Amino acid sequence: MKKEENFSDWYNEVVEENGLTDKRYPIKGMNVWPPYGWKTMLLIDAIVRREFDSRGHDEVNFPLLIPEDQFEKEKEHIKGFDSQVFWVTKAGDNELDIRLLLRPTSETAMYPLFATWIRSHADLPLRIYQIVNTFRYETKQTRAFIRVREIHFIEGHTCHATFEDAERQINEDIEIMRDIAKGLCLPFRIHTRPDWDKFPGAFYTKAIDTLLPDGRTLQIASIHQYRSNFAVPYGIYFEEEDGTRKPVFQTTFGLSERMLGAVVAVHGDDMGLVMPPPIAPVQAVVVPVPVKGEAGSIGGEAEKVWKRLSAAGVRARLDSRDIRPGNKYYEWERKGVPLRIEVGRREAAEKFVTAVRRDSGEKSRIDGASLEDGVKELLDEISDSLRRRAAEKEKLLEKEAAALADIGPGLNMVWWCGSEECGKGIDEKTGSSILGIPEGKQEGSGRCIVCGKETGTRAAVSRPM
Amino acid sequence: MKKEENFSDWYNEVVEENGLTDKRYPIKGMNVWPPYGWKTMLLIDAIVRREFDSRGHDEVNFPLLIPEDQFEKEKEHIKGFDSQVFWVTKAGDNELDIRLLLRPTSETAMYPLFATWIRSHADLPLRIYQIVNTFRYETKQTRAFIRVREIHFIEGHTCHATFEDAERQINEDIEIMRDIAKGLCLPFRIHTRPDWDKFPGAFYTKAIDTLLPDGRTLQIASIHQYRSNFAVPYGIYFEEEDGTRKPVFQTTFGLSERMLGAVVAVHGDDMGLVMPPPIAPVQAVVVPVPVKGEAGSIGGEAEKVWKRLSAAGVRARLDSRDIRPGNKYYEWERKGVPLRIEVGRREAAEKFVTAVRRDSGEKSRIDGASLEDGVKELLDEISDSLRRRAAEKEKLLEKEAAALADIGPGLNMVWWCGSEECGKGIDEKTGSSILGIPEGKQEGSGRCIVCGKETGTRAAVSRPM
Repeated sequence: MKKEENFSDWYNEVVEENGLTDKRYPIKGMNVWPPYGWKTMLLIDAIVRREFDSRGHDEVNFPLLIPEDQFEKEKEHIKGFDSQVFWVTKAGDNELDIRLLLRPTSETAMYPLFATWIRSHADLPLRIYQIVNTFRYETKQTRAFIRVREIHFIEGHTCHATFEDAERQINEDIEIMRDIAKGLCLPFRIHTRPDWDKFPGAFYTKAIDTLLPDGRTLQIASIHQYRSNFAVPYGIYFEEEDGTRKPVFQTTFGLSERMLGAVVAVHGDDMGLVMPPPIAPVQAVVVPVPVKGEAGSIGGEAEKVWKRLSAAGVRARLDSRDIRPGNKYYEWERKGVPLRIEVGRREAAEKFVTAVRRDSGEKSRIDGASLEDGVKELLDEISDSLRRRAAEKEKLLEKEAAALADIGPGLNMVWWCGSEECGKGIDEKTGSSILGIPEGKQEGSGRCIVCGKETGTRAAVSRPM
Repeated sequence: MKKEENFSDWYNEVVEENGLTDKRYPIKGMNVWPPYGWKTMLLIDAIVRREFDSRGHDEVNFPLLIPEDQFEKEKEHIKGFDSQVFWVTKAGDNELDIRLLLRPTSETAMYPLFATWIRSHADLPLRIYQIVNTFRYETKQTRAFIRVREIHFIEGHTCHATFEDAERQINEDIEIMRDIAKGLCLPFRIHTRPDWDKFPGAFYTKAIDTLLPDGRTLQIASIHQYRSNFAVPYGIYFEEEDGTRKPVFQTTFGLSERMLGAVVAVHGDDMGLVMPPPIAPVQAVVVPVPVKGEAGSIGGEAEKVWKRLSAAGVRARLDSRDIRPGNKYYEWERKGVPLRIEVGRREAAEKFVTAVRRDSGEKSRIDGASLEDGVKELLDEISDSLRRRAAEKEKLLEKEAAALADIGPGLNMVWWCGSEECGKGIDEKTGSSILGIPEGKQEGSGRCIVCGKETGTRAAVSRPM
């Protein structure tokens, strides 16, 4: 299957045939995570945990079900999610007095508790996160990892004494995102979403967008400044040192399994998956290449190599199945294992291994004496190379659009007067929409691509996935 | 609060006041995991993962929701769970055509997929597990970790070509349980449940029971032999080498957050929690004990100690808050941190630390040069001592009961003719019930405690929690 010819079919095939997902579960948009896919997701989760934990955020776990009356306190929020919610109305043989909903996100589950946890300025900032399953009744076409109804979701929630401290948290979230994206070997862009596209209830939303090879964008994470929009209806107040009572300022940071979808889409090729070493469940597969009469001794050498790599902390696997090496190569290539380590007669005799890179096909020789370091260096090089290549490809997808007719696949940079009318006009006329204002200083000025008014605001326009 | 005087109140207080759970969530039996409790559970999960993974079981993740028609295929199973199920009947504004239930356990979610995964003997054994939230509409009184409506659950599922291979798996499950229980420092007993008390749909059930200090028993895990009871209705067949099609043999192994409940109940004391070092989120808290004018240098020494311990892989915490050391001691003791490391003027001057054990109160001196090894050895000693103490206490709770009048708190060993009538008769007459037949060879004979018939079967009787 050619990735460039039909990206959408290529994606569906590559995720299902290589064990990342199983879509045969009988509910649309609720997929099974088989071992290979789930291990990859757990490795991504481990990076997320490391980045949150090392900055002093605490992991928690809140209940899945939210009572209807508790959900309805913030009016914008409920409006945004009402049509997407799964309702539990019965338990055993009893109709429930108060209906329960499956969390689409956990603001309304957490905030009544925050109101009991926070008393004074000494309790602030509060910084927690959780990794859970969330639910949205998607009516659009579903797609593995990208648009599903049961979502593997990471949600960070913070409370602060001042707006400025909440803003500092948002900057830290961007740092965290950078470190996570490094592990995924993914470039990303930050766009402040237009007002009509922000998170329901938020003061503003910064989205983390990744460009996909077909020129569409995928939001893989988002960061929200709530100000006190939730704190007031949920009663999250604190006492200042001088005794005054004030509502807290809140932020959230949401990431999901879409990160894995982006990894597949950006790095994969016509042969199949290409897994970045930091999140590859198997970083190196050791394959003995036996010749007649020497299968035993070569198998023994391969096993030694595998054991040494495992002991050194490399996620290595020994493939000693009784099938032809070529079949093994094919299978592991499709699964995107970053390095293949071949051990044959010459290797065994001369004490080296042959390493073959999945990303470039390049072969190299690693001396037996420096096996562990050699493999680790090669894995780092592969990661660097994936990052570089992804960034270069992404650059090619960015272009200037001076008129509506110029807007096409990829990321279109336009001048925009900032009005909702012109913003939505772009969508109506081109099918692409305003992602938002890109992060960073805006320079110069130009004419709004719709109304022609002079403006200092640049916006990014694309077709979202 | 005295543990021995009122175990139930003591338990409720100790779990909530020390950050293991927060029961203020507005749905009965659905509790919040705050950071300290959740970190402990994640450490237990990590042990579970290590034991499953190292034996070649693969972690997966299945959807939460199960369609009603799929759930109903195994008749005994549905009978056992029907009254305990939460039903999703609506999504957005739509009534669902087929109702969805929140998994109480995942047999009926997984097995239709197993039917597609397994084709031939080469696909067997299949050995997977998942760590998920499951739901049961408990009508009995709820209790944190022990009887809840949203359950943190670990479920292992296996498929085999023969009954014998499934039996071998059950022996391996017992080994896994031993290794997990070692981490929890908990003794346990294995009882084959009587037929009327086995898992709905199982051929037989072996339960892992722990004795609680109040003389009741808590089932912390269970292992089930299904034979082909599920494989037939769910169509999980495989082709033998000779081409015949046969249903697979299945087992499951379930463990839950009850393990944490048992840890609290067994090890805790009048001062609060006592966390076993392998699962303690904080294994050692470093407390500077400053004297006037030297707070800075002593604080610096304490920080060095904390950094060295952290670098050596000890989960250490530095408590440098500006409150009196005594208050810190009290707080960490209640939270059950295994070791307190004091750094004061003499320690700083003479290059040693004072270590205080939570389990025994014992103080000892660890030389600065061997700080890391000294702390690790002490943590191991604490674990050993907790295991020993728990096993000794448990022994005291076991006794012989020759007549129904002898049956009391604890584990009562009785002769039982094996009939359901006599088995249930014990419950009616004493309030204690048959846990089952203890693992191991049965010897000798005696008269059934109810009907007086001569029998070679010993049974364990207790009041379950």
